[in-house]
Amino acid sequence: MAQWNRSGYFRSSVSRDVNPDLEAERRTASFSVERLTAVLDGGADNTRTRRAMEAVIHRDPVFSREKQYFQSQNERYEAAVRKAVRLKEKMLQRGWTENRPETKYFYRALGGDVAFNVHRVFKNSILALGTDEQIAKWIPLAEKYHIIGTYAQTELGHGTFLRGLETTATFDTSTQEFTLNTPRISAMKWWPGDLGRSATHAVVFAQLYVKGECYGLHPFIVQIRSLRDHLPAPGVTVGDIGPKMNFEHIDNGYLMLQSVTIPRENMLGRFSQVLPDGTYMKRGSDKINYLTMIVTRVEMLWVEVIPALQKACTIAVRYSVVRRQSKLNPGEAEAKILDYQTQQQKLLPLLATAYALHFMNAYVNKFYSKGYTEIREGNFDSLPELHALTSGLKAIITDYCTAGAEVCLRACGGHGYSALSGLPFLYTKVAASCTYEGDNTVLFLQTARYLVKCLAAVHAGQPTPPSVAYLSLTNSRKCWVRTEADLLKPDIYAEAYRRRASRLLSTAAAKLQALIQSGAEEYVAWNRCTVQLVQAAKAHCQYIIVKNFIDTVEKLTNEAEIQKIMKHLCDLFALHGIFSNTGDFLHDGYISGDQMDLVTASYLDLLAVIRSDAVPLVDAFDFTDENLNSALGSYDGHVYQRLYEWAQKSPTNQQVSQAYESYLKPLFQGALSKL
Amino acid sequence: MAQWNRSGYFRSSVSRDVNPDLEAERRTASFSVERLTAVLDGGADNTRTRRAMEAVIHRDPVFSREKQYFQSQNERYEAAVRKAVRLKEKMLQRGWTENRPETKYFYRALGGDVAFNVHRVFKNSILALGTDEQIAKWIPLAEKYHIIGTYAQTELGHGTFLRGLETTATFDTSTQEFTLNTPRISAMKWWPGDLGRSATHAVVFAQLYVKGECYGLHPFIVQIRSLRDHLPAPGVTVGDIGPKMNFEHIDNGYLMLQSVTIPRENMLGRFSQVLPDGTYMKRGSDKINYLTMIVTRVEMLWVEVIPALQKACTIAVRYSVVRRQSKLNPGEAEAKILDYQTQQQKLLPLLATAYALHFMNAYVNKFYSKGYTEIREGNFDSLPELHALTSGLKAIITDYCTAGAEVCLRACGGHGYSALSGLPFLYTKVAASCTYEGDNTVLFLQTARYLVKCLAAVHAGQPTPPSVAYLSLTNSRKCWVRTEADLLKPDIYAEAYRRRASRLLSTAAAKLQALIQSGAEEYVAWNRCTVQLVQAAKAHCQYIIVKNFIDTVEKLTNEAEIQKIMKHLCDLFALHGIFSNTGDFLHDGYISGDQMDLVTASYLDLLAVIRSDAVPLVDAFDFTDENLNSALGSYDGHVYQRLYEWAQKSPTNQQVSQAYESYLKPLFQGALSKL
Repeated sequence: MAQWNRSGYFRSSVSRDVNPDLEAERRTASFSVERLTAVLDGGADNTRTRRAMEAVIHRDPVFSREKQYFQSQNERYEAAVRKAVRLKEKMLQRGWTENRPETKYFYRALGGDVAFNVHRVFKNSILALGTDEQIAKWIPLAEKYHIIGTYAQTELGHGTFLRGLETTATFDTSTQEFTLNTPRISAMKWWPGDLGRSATHAVVFAQLYVKGECYGLHPFIVQIRSLRDHLPAPGVTVGDIGPKMNFEHIDNGYLMLQSVTIPRENMLGRFSQVLPDGTYMKRGSDKINYLTMIVTRVEMLWVEVIPALQKACTIAVRYSVVRRQSKLNPGEAEAKILDYQTQQQKLLPLLATAYALHFMNAYVNKFYSKGYTEIREGNFDSLPELHALTSGLKAIITDYCTAGAEVCLRACGGHGYSALSGLPFLYTKVAASCTYEGDNTVLFLQTARYLVKCLAAVHAGQPTPPSVAYLSLTNSRKCWVRTEADLLKPDIYAEAYRRRASRLLSTAAAKLQALIQSGAEEYVAWNRCTVQLVQAAKAHCQYIIVKNFIDTVEKLTNEAEIQKIMKHLCDLFALHGIFSNTGDFLHDGYISGDQMDLVTASYLDLLAVIRSDAVPLVDAFDFTDENLNSALGSYDGHVYQRLYEWAQKSPTNQQVSQAYESYLKPLFQGALSKL
Repeated sequence: MAQWNRSGYFRSSVSRDVNPDLEAERRTASFSVERLTAVLDGGADNTRTRRAMEAVIHRDPVFSREKQYFQSQNERYEAAVRKAVRLKEKMLQRGWTENRPETKYFYRALGGDVAFNVHRVFKNSILALGTDEQIAKWIPLAEKYHIIGTYAQTELGHGTFLRGLETTATFDTSTQEFTLNTPRISAMKWWPGDLGRSATHAVVFAQLYVKGECYGLHPFIVQIRSLRDHLPAPGVTVGDIGPKMNFEHIDNGYLMLQSVTIPRENMLGRFSQVLPDGTYMKRGSDKINYLTMIVTRVEMLWVEVIPALQKACTIAVRYSVVRRQSKLNPGEAEAKILDYQTQQQKLLPLLATAYALHFMNAYVNKFYSKGYTEIREGNFDSLPELHALTSGLKAIITDYCTAGAEVCLRACGGHGYSALSGLPFLYTKVAASCTYEGDNTVLFLQTARYLVKCLAAVHAGQPTPPSVAYLSLTNSRKCWVRTEADLLKPDIYAEAYRRRASRLLSTAAAKLQALIQSGAEEYVAWNRCTVQLVQAAKAHCQYIIVKNFIDTVEKLTNEAEIQKIMKHLCDLFALHGIFSNTGDFLHDGYISGDQMDLVTASYLDLLAVIRSDAVPLVDAFDFTDENLNSALGSYDGHVYQRLYEWAQKSPTNQQVSQAYESYLKPLFQGALSKL
């Protein structure tokens, strides 16, 4: 018994003895895991840098996540502040900055539970919207955490529709001050992170009124708490919005302003100002604002969203080769659950998706960097395409990763539901990404609106941007697939996806047109097409992702073994997408029922192919045990021991409950005489 | 300001002033909500009884769920024990018993957070598996909570595959005792509810060994904690398995046995016994054991699962007519979000599903009661059909309700993600139902195995049970739908579902047969067909649910208005299912692409029809505010006020955090001289 009951044993990142069932999976890898990791990192140098930074973080006990699953909301908040302050120290010590590519490495190592992310948005908004004087005054203070800021935009009654925000800022020429007010409960600022218990300042968005006239939404710097004693400033009501499904380490807050005055200089003035006499001045285009939104969406994908799916896959795949359950062959030992086709069907397409999204993200970052430079130079030509692309991809990628994390959780049976598996944490956290930085349905519709415009341009013979150029291609009527092997040709499935995206868009656009021509008002017509427009936008994004996966695989010519397994994953991703949406492809007879049977067969065969490399494929994501923080997913596969060790640390085993003394003890007296 | 800042205002179940946006929805109901509630309750008398019981529960502050979202795992456990003990008092006072139909009313009123559910399983297992003497000894003690029992079956390494359980019970003729052992870590009992911190006794399943021979799994009553001081009995290691995604009110536990001895009489002996000389005796059939499993699955659907979806729909639908966001018509006020087609598409099919499942559940209960009586009388003929039906329905209903609760959560934007919406609680709790009482994939495959047998019987010209009789019908080749109106004929869509279920089963069975004939071993062939077999089982269940909805609507002839709206819901449920699985219907050309366009049009038109009755339809579920425990879903629709009032009660606003004093205060000093 003592043999498996060792303590102090489980926290080492790589144990010397690996569960033999897991080790066996690694011995038969068809490719070098280390080289694939380098491919994912964009080079072995990056891998080295990343690991070095991760080691720094993991060595420091302040950053430990050991107690995370046992902490209350209060404890998680306190730990997150402690980590943020420590991280700032580390960054100063080591010369790490937020603007270098390595940023992502320390956020990756931290696993996300760190405070003051919205403080960064506060800073960025001053940098983007402030005058040079404002930047010079506020940024150094914010840099050193001498003040903590938040970005107070969303209100209790308004998230998506910014023009509807109700907070007011009224200028008084006699005092040279703005007076800010929350006119009714729906106008309370609600949700801003770092607001509930930390922030001393906020960039508050409010409707600007001067001399009775409304000039629309503008940003103002407002001090909300004293720097001496942290009490709310006069007229300010501020607090925490309470428990959430996750993100309890963040003090999302509420803010109510009652006649709070700020000096004229506190309106962020790069694009508009109010002069002392009350004259309103607008200067330049504030289109650059879109860029802030785009950069946040691009960043969140690699900081929080895609890693969540990759971690969930790592945990579920490793567990699925350690867990044995039932006998596949009556004469043999119980089978690894990953040997069941139904388990493969749950996890392996997700593994393919995790790779597809990683590569998609790499592309978007390149595309974004190029666009960013142009836009900073005042050339806004690429802005609509960049906005449409990042909107749709944010929506589809967060959808994929949320659904995927949930499948991983459920695929681990009861143990997946234990917080100690790490999966409830991953799922409940990534689920929020479908809403923050833009509700996914709203974002898909933004992409759809852009696509409808592009289609009109195609019909008018006008040129279209690269990502939608495919809309002008002519469509063949039938897919010519005859064998399963044909289906493994990227041209074949790319064309099927392209055609489907094109058809769904045309159908939705035609319906829209027909409704308008039959006399419906445009907004009514648009609303009546939105279900189909969302479908079209999704199909567009899926085509982009498939196409990008194909292109990525083609470029891996120097890595034959890796290219081979990535080609399999690309095939699996594409065929799984067809298998899961057969109707879209069968609808107009482009693919026939018989051909669809080939898709099914080919897809199921691929599962078995990927199966044998499943563990090496998740190993290549190269998450440390600290990073996964999962009793089921650790590198050494000692699942049951870890569950037992970790459970013993739970407060439910450390704290005495009054339940026994108060309620049970008196009852048990009744049995004493009888047993 | 003070006008909306009243406290002590929000806890009344029905406020006098209802949000006008919500009230307007109720004024235009096409039917009587009260009469529909009576239909759902199975008669107005039941409604009265239910409301009276709910009032008793809600009046007692012990049962209050006001603090639930702010409680730690320890606090939730303690509250659940307190409630269980109080409930027992109430039952004794009022003469409520667990065996009467009213049971469901008090469980409904409690909202589920009550301890000692597995204690009930402990009792039931003694009743089913114990001898009369054992029943006489243990049941009275358990009834009065003089002992608390648990049902210790699942082990760390074994859930699904019971034969693989590793705990041993070895009989020693010299001492007349069984010695129980946990031979290795994977054999620890893990997950049983009420075990971690409460139970004094357990029914432990262990492999029985007598004189070196193994007789397989048997149940034993084992005392695990002292009745005097609640300390673990000698040789017993017991504790709590720690935090979970939800169910933190339950002390799911672990149990390790090291040479724990119990008297011979403690083996539950209705179906097998060990005589003093070590002779093993088996008597009668223990097929009746299946009945315990079936009854638990049937019960959980109405106790926990279907109400979760109904509550989630109530919250999301009410919120969606109170929340206004963006302008649908540029000239008008912001629109209620339920007026957006995309929001309707999320919520209204779920509303239809909630009704479909309610009616399905009513049917299953009737079917089950009939079968139960026959089986108790020793006639096991209906057992396979009952088992297959309840397995598949448990799986599909928990799938529907879990996915549905998640959609409701996401459909409420950021506020849905707040614990105060009640939706995270509903989702994280119902999600567990996909795993407990049988993993859904495993259950679908059990149904599929039964269906494959039935199909073989059909081919052999043998008779089939009623629920699968449809497999012997011949299939028409084409659907004859020509207009949207045709699609609203139940015969039409029922036939489409029937045909699809039949085709998917035939395809999977044919593949299975072909693989076996080509020389594959049966278990290999079965595994290679499981993805398609699961599809077939799902299609079967969906057909059964659609058919039952149609039958239910037909019988509502005395309630013309209710019949009309239920018919719309039935149409919506059926057409949404086709719209979401178009490929299954297009595959063999039974429905053409053009016909599918009619399905889409008809489905989208129905959304607008149901929209106008959406609020009355959720009102008819008749959940009290206490029951919903949601700041977004209360009857009066004062959403924003409640969010604000409730947030103020959060411990994050009541407890001082060290974060400011320890980490922030020193930093803020740096700004004092500069601001």
